[in-house]
Amino acid sequence: MNATGPALGVDIGGTKIAIGLVAADGRIIASEVLPTEAELGFDRAVRRICETFERLLHLNQLGAKHLDGVGIGCAGPVDPASGEINNPYTLTGWMHCDIVRPLAAALGVPVWLENDADVAAVGECFIGAGRDQDPVVMLTIGTGVGGAVITGGKIFRGVRGEHPELGHVPVVFGGPECYCGRRGCLESLISGTAIAAAGRAAGLADAGQVFAAAANGHAEAAQILSTVRQAMDAAVWTILHTTLPQRIILGGGVVEAQSEWFLSVAREAVARATMAPTGAVTVEPAQLGGQAGVVGAARWAMIRAG
Amino acid sequence: MNATGPALGVDIGGTKIAIGLVAADGRIIASEVLPTEAELGFDRAVRRICETFERLLHLNQLGAKHLDGVGIGCAGPVDPASGEINNPYTLTGWMHCDIVRPLAAALGVPVWLENDADVAAVGECFIGAGRDQDPVVMLTIGTGVGGAVITGGKIFRGVRGEHPELGHVPVVFGGPECYCGRRGCLESLISGTAIAAAGRAAGLADAGQVFAAAANGHAEAAQILSTVRQAMDAAVWTILHTTLPQRIILGGGVVEAQSEWFLSVAREAVARATMAPTGAVTVEPAQLGGQAGVVGAARWAMIRAG
Repeated sequence: MNATGPALGVDIGGTKIAIGLVAADGRIIASEVLPTEAELGFDRAVRRICETFERLLHLNQLGAKHLDGVGIGCAGPVDPASGEINNPYTLTGWMHCDIVRPLAAALGVPVWLENDADVAAVGECFIGAGRDQDPVVMLTIGTGVGGAVITGGKIFRGVRGEHPELGHVPVVFGGPECYCGRRGCLESLISGTAIAAAGRAAGLADAGQVFAAAANGHAEAAQILSTVRQAMDAAVWTILHTTLPQRIILGGGVVEAQSEWFLSVAREAVARATMAPTGAVTVEPAQLGGQAGVVGAARWAMIRAG
Repeated sequence: MNATGPALGVDIGGTKIAIGLVAADGRIIASEVLPTEAELGFDRAVRRICETFERLLHLNQLGAKHLDGVGIGCAGPVDPASGEINNPYTLTGWMHCDIVRPLAAALGVPVWLENDADVAAVGECFIGAGRDQDPVVMLTIGTGVGGAVITGGKIFRGVRGEHPELGHVPVVFGGPECYCGRRGCLESLISGTAIAAAGRAAGLADAGQVFAAAANGHAEAAQILSTVRQAMDAAVWTILHTTLPQRIILGGGVVEAQSEWFLSVAREAVARATMAPTGAVTVEPAQLGGQAGVVGAARWAMIRAG
């Protein structure tokens, strides 16, 4: 690896875009957060990202020539090969949106696009919960559910270099409808959106209230969490029996808010597995929180430039 | 790759051990099949495998010095690193059984042990349904259910180099008990053993009779197949959303006997997926049948020796 950093990391989610200037050791030198406002147009978002790049570089007395490059993690589906975002599901209207070419043209440095779950896992493997572990599966439970597999230091890729969408493994037959067209996907059961929707039907405002009410003996809330537990348990077994990772990392806003609960469900599932080597698989919380995307995206640019 | 073959391939299953002398182009020069008779002891099986090696080499006027080596595929769990078979589940009494050392000592050539599902997939990728495809997932449905992922020409490995047991992904809540300790694993629902057991409860002798009776309007048989279909559909979705392979290969005795049925269920599942690139994932039957294990095991020895 000849890369010396720094690099710019961009983390594009449904609600916000985080942009950071990251040093070669993973430290965030400076960062900014913009609202995504996908529905206001892709070109507008690209323009604002470029403006933020210029501001971050200027304020830190750097030029683009000092950068290894730019890494972008974006809520998928994305196509790393073509540089296109194809995610009208959570980024309204963003279909066939080439983000690599305009950013590369603006800065004159190489730009790489990856799925947000992949770069978050790269970040955790760099300076977080995935250090010295192989393979690593990171499951991110927030507004949606994403997953990533890192094996031998590389992002595991499917056909055409694309990203397997772990949030859509089926875990419950006849469960709630998922936007992907199936019922009972992991995302339709354990995402913050899903827990909140189930909670609202029981008169509870959000996922946090569901957990609080269940702890206070609220029967419907307990029933919702029983389904979440069942889905989470199945997801961990699916991960164990498809990927058999050394480390399962749990991240995302929903996990951060209920860390002990999710870790305990996942660890119990691992402990019951007889077809995985005893004691070889561990479950740990993500360490980088909301910074994993920016750090991992920048790290990916350093790796690719190296 | 400097290997020029031939190599010996060994395929150890619960009922039989197939042994073949395989040319560098994948052609089986000669082969023999022994009953496994695991309960009669591991040492006896090793002795009979060595005798068969000597016979195959002698009859083909070859010496061990002409071989690239020996590849062994065995019903898992196996530990490729230590060379140990740890599968008391389907090989009665075979726990901590080092098969690499005695065979290497007997022939004086390198010996490699892998999971049987992995070497079958290596065989199919060599001269069968997986040629020029990447990644490849092979799902083998026979007495049990095995799976393998080949990515970039390599066997995908979990922690400690071990094999993820795809037969134990959970597909139905509260389904039948599996020997792994969970209910509703893929293997407990779609294996030949599972279909036959469900059939016997409905007065049908075996898996073949279940398919035949369902085709003739037998309600209980149709109900059994409805569950098998549901489990198979979930398994394909799990494969798509964890691994996103270019090619899914379906193999094993149960698939061979009902090829159209299984292919159609799997292809319908792929066609419904919206989170996988359209038209990028195909499902094909295995082409090597019962020879995949021997060819793949020998091929693995050629690759490792190369």
